[in-house]
Amino acid sequence: MKTASIITVGNEILKGRTVNTNAAFIGNFLTYHGYQVKRGIIVMDELDEIGWAFRTALDVSDIVVSSGGLGPTFDDMTVEGFARCTGQNLVINEDALSMIRKKYSTSDLTEQRLKMAKMPQTCRPVENPVGTAPGLLCNMEGKKVIILPGVPKEMQALLEAMEDEIRLPDMHYYDESVIISGVMESVFAPYVDRIMKEFDGIYVKSHPRNVEVKNPELEIEISGFGEDEAALKKKIRDAISRAGEYAVKLGGTVKR
Amino acid sequence: MKTASIITVGNEILKGRTVNTNAAFIGNFLTYHGYQVKRGIIVMDELDEIGWAFRTALDVSDIVVSSGGLGPTFDDMTVEGFARCTGQNLVINEDALSMIRKKYSTSDLTEQRLKMAKMPQTCRPVENPVGTAPGLLCNMEGKKVIILPGVPKEMQALLEAMEDEIRLPDMHYYDESVIISGVMESVFAPYVDRIMKEFDGIYVKSHPRNVEVKNPELEIEISGFGEDEAALKKKIRDAISRAGEYAVKLGGTVKR
Repeated sequence: MKTASIITVGNEILKGRTVNTNAAFIGNFLTYHGYQVKRGIIVMDELDEIGWAFRTALDVSDIVVSSGGLGPTFDDMTVEGFARCTGQNLVINEDALSMIRKKYSTSDLTEQRLKMAKMPQTCRPVENPVGTAPGLLCNMEGKKVIILPGVPKEMQALLEAMEDEIRLPDMHYYDESVIISGVMESVFAPYVDRIMKEFDGIYVKSHPRNVEVKNPELEIEISGFGEDEAALKKKIRDAISRAGEYAVKLGGTVKR
Repeated sequence: MKTASIITVGNEILKGRTVNTNAAFIGNFLTYHGYQVKRGIIVMDELDEIGWAFRTALDVSDIVVSSGGLGPTFDDMTVEGFARCTGQNLVINEDALSMIRKKYSTSDLTEQRLKMAKMPQTCRPVENPVGTAPGLLCNMEGKKVIILPGVPKEMQALLEAMEDEIRLPDMHYYDESVIISGVMESVFAPYVDRIMKEFDGIYVKSHPRNVEVKNPELEIEISGFGEDEAALKKKIRDAISRAGEYAVKLGGTVKR
């Protein structure tokens, strides 16, 4: 199973000024393209912290996707943090330079704009269809590192532009949910265990949607990965039916 | 400056099924109570991963706040993960037991319910005013560890109940923003540097709100920490005025 880690760079995320919707979008994208997302890491706009995040993520993942810290200001330092922690130098990439040049009507490439064209030699730029800073797609020791800007529309457009490089063609993900009323999570808990034993390789999670005791309502989410998409869907659907049967047995009702 | 780290436990966050609003709420709460939030970590519902998260967070922070993985199901394992990685045993806490007992009309404490009363001896339970599982407040080697459930309303109520234990009375945080139109981020970038040099100990961040080239609009956010709340506010407001002056000098306009 190929694994992924997601890095978010930015003090505004740590302070809770901005909710981390980028990590959710990237996590969803990677999951549906066949990766088990293993870790999320959020760090400040500091070189050492960014370096720590990339080293940590590379240790446990086949693909690392970061967002944030890719613009022209002094605290946009994701590329430099990544380069330093992997012992690489930053060099002007000519393709990136021409992408950036196209964006500005003036030919005046200030130091701040030039910065967006600098990257390690293991990386290639991907044109940003929405904003200015190109995305970076890097291949390192058989692992992929993708560095994206923090503005959500730019991040999303770039991730979708890299889809063919990300997708794992032989791995599929599927999930389905069922809503159960009238059964407490603590009562259903042993059946979560049981369903996971009955159906090999699936993951069952109960999400309480109401107050546990007074008016319990649970969402039972069943998910899994598999090489055979049809067999995977059938298994998940059978497990969902089984969860419904157990709920009824426990005096609950099933909503879809 | 006291530092904080935030841990979120749950596959649903990593997969992007749920947006991590908990981390944003906690980050905001900690910032406004005087902490610099240094790292955010999101891990799977696995003991080793949870242990890694707590060890990593404790290494760099004075306070660690986690949410998620505190319920009755098999994959609620945050407390055990924390206990293991700090070499502590789990024991039944009598206060927690009576909190949990009160929540269920039946006196039947199943294994799954008993689990929510088990904690290391460095921790004490804090009654959950919304749900069942008590929160945990732990003091370890002069550091605080706070373990909260993942349901947002429960997490928020518990965090607020612990406010007196969290607040740093001698440290204040303040921020203010100004919107600048008609100046590109790459043009304003050197002035971000300059303002940070002119006003000691503040942090200036530009958030682009529009497409850089066509119709640029920037939010300039200026923030800082200080022991003297009035002096801190004055400094931030003066810096905001300065940012507005530079924007006008560059041909832009200032909105509030």
